[in-house]
Amino acid sequence: MTRTIVASATREIAIGFDQPFCVIGERINPTGRKKLAAEMVEGNFDTVRKDALEQVAAGATMLDINAGVTAVDPNATEPGLMVQTLQIVQELVDIPLAIDSSVTAAIEAGLKVARGRPLINSVTGEEDKLEAILPLARKYDVPVVAISNDETGISMDPDVRFEVARKIVQRAMDHGIKPEDMVVDPLVMPIGALGDAGLQVFALLRRLREELKVNTTCGLSNISFGLPHRHGINAGFIPMVIGAGMTSAIMNPCRPQEMEAVRAANVLAGVDKDCGTWIRTYKDFRPGEHAAPAPAPLDGGARRRGGRAARLGAQA
Amino acid sequence: MTRTIVASATREIAIGFDQPFCVIGERINPTGRKKLAAEMVEGNFDTVRKDALEQVAAGATMLDINAGVTAVDPNATEPGLMVQTLQIVQELVDIPLAIDSSVTAAIEAGLKVARGRPLINSVTGEEDKLEAILPLARKYDVPVVAISNDETGISMDPDVRFEVARKIVQRAMDHGIKPEDMVVDPLVMPIGALGDAGLQVFALLRRLREELKVNTTCGLSNISFGLPHRHGINAGFIPMVIGAGMTSAIMNPCRPQEMEAVRAANVLAGVDKDCGTWIRTYKDFRPGEHAAPAPAPLDGGARRRGGRAARLGAQA
Repeated sequence: MTRTIVASATREIAIGFDQPFCVIGERINPTGRKKLAAEMVEGNFDTVRKDALEQVAAGATMLDINAGVTAVDPNATEPGLMVQTLQIVQELVDIPLAIDSSVTAAIEAGLKVARGRPLINSVTGEEDKLEAILPLARKYDVPVVAISNDETGISMDPDVRFEVARKIVQRAMDHGIKPEDMVVDPLVMPIGALGDAGLQVFALLRRLREELKVNTTCGLSNISFGLPHRHGINAGFIPMVIGAGMTSAIMNPCRPQEMEAVRAANVLAGVDKDCGTWIRTYKDFRPGEHAAPAPAPLDGGARRRGGRAARLGAQA
Repeated sequence: MTRTIVASATREIAIGFDQPFCVIGERINPTGRKKLAAEMVEGNFDTVRKDALEQVAAGATMLDINAGVTAVDPNATEPGLMVQTLQIVQELVDIPLAIDSSVTAAIEAGLKVARGRPLINSVTGEEDKLEAILPLARKYDVPVVAISNDETGISMDPDVRFEVARKIVQRAMDHGIKPEDMVVDPLVMPIGALGDAGLQVFALLRRLREELKVNTTCGLSNISFGLPHRHGINAGFIPMVIGAGMTSAIMNPCRPQEMEAVRAANVLAGVDKDCGTWIRTYKDFRPGEHAAPAPAPLDGGARRRGGRAARLGAQA
């Protein structure tokens, strides 16, 4: 059974087909958030702290950390800011983190300070990316998100995207990285622009699960871009991708409708044992209500870490 | 491509894998509704009329009609009451109906008066049922819901349920009924009692679609029986069954959360052309709101009937 292990200082989480869906909180990302970017440049991490606490309270399994505050000379600013942001977040909350950057130096800087076993987000099928990121994943013994595009861009043909994913997984194996440490993003297109975007993803997820046997992720809200009432589309998409085999997503856990869809799909996919999380979260839910439910504890996938000092050592 | 055609006096609907999900409104059913049963026995059809109008306004594709007001001598009361109820409903609304009874005489009485092409609900794999119902379906040239249980009851083994479905479809063919006129109900168990009820149904739906190539239905809300916040479980289940290949369900269309899940899944399955129904329904939706949206017109599957006089003749 494929299991991607991620960890914070003391908590280990398995991403897998038999595990509760892994919700990777997307909020700590200055892309498209000018105010947050300006704050982070000034060394003000108040919003970062708030976003970390709120996402964990809302039920995030992991947090994505992106420090891309500027398109101007990111190599100069991003490594330092990634380190600062990671350190602030992991002082505050004890859940696994994803180090999200297009700057290799920022990823390596992050890997040096992250506790536990973070996830690298991401590598693509581009040659220079593969040869920059995969050796880091091997050196620090951490899993990697593999995005199924390459030098030619994002193919509209899902078979091509599958082949790019296969190439990345194969290359990772050449570097000594196991397929279970590759989390493939099949790339989700906006359904408002591409009517078969959903069908493409469902078919890709099935092949990724059955043929490559890898875990998967996506930027979930892309699917609803441009449509009214996006939360409704997102909340319908979540059970469908979970049913098709997706095991994690980068999404906003502070949206009650989307998180309700995750919890329902966990029940229906048989990974919420005895419906425990569902019952705990919704036992006092009133009909007609649609506010944030009481935050549930982390799902069953989490457990205290033990005997993982060796891996921590690799990151020293 | 499998298409089950149902029709009212002037509207024809196709149930199929490339069609919007067929929502069969479940409200007109006195089972478990003592007040409605008492009204119907007294010849008071006010609630029936109200339920018919509300379900159509909420977006039902078809309406299920059940007149089972009593367990005491249903053979005496049900045929007459079925005829009355059908006539009242089809005077009021122009959408296809399902004739829902365990009493063969009530089904035949209903078939004699129903306009268009109703759906029989249902036959099982029980020998006496098969030989009572299938000849009626053949005689009146109408489709039938096939429930996958038999004399031995409902098997907990999904492979046995699949074989019962296969047997019913085969027997229907022996009677000259095409598989496209069989709508199989794989039987949905409560997930609170049976943790793999969801996985069972998804696997069955896939086999029914790929091996028997038949349309499918279910009593949708069974899945959430006994759990808190049932609408949340139902709303997660709908996209999962649609993703697995289910093409209709008997459900309550007056529940906005469930209908939103149906509309979202239609978008994501690529059967809401240009997201037209979604945009029309939710273009003015306000975040935080969760009331009934403005009723949308019937989905794209409906069109005016033409050239179907021969079939109407068969029911005279």
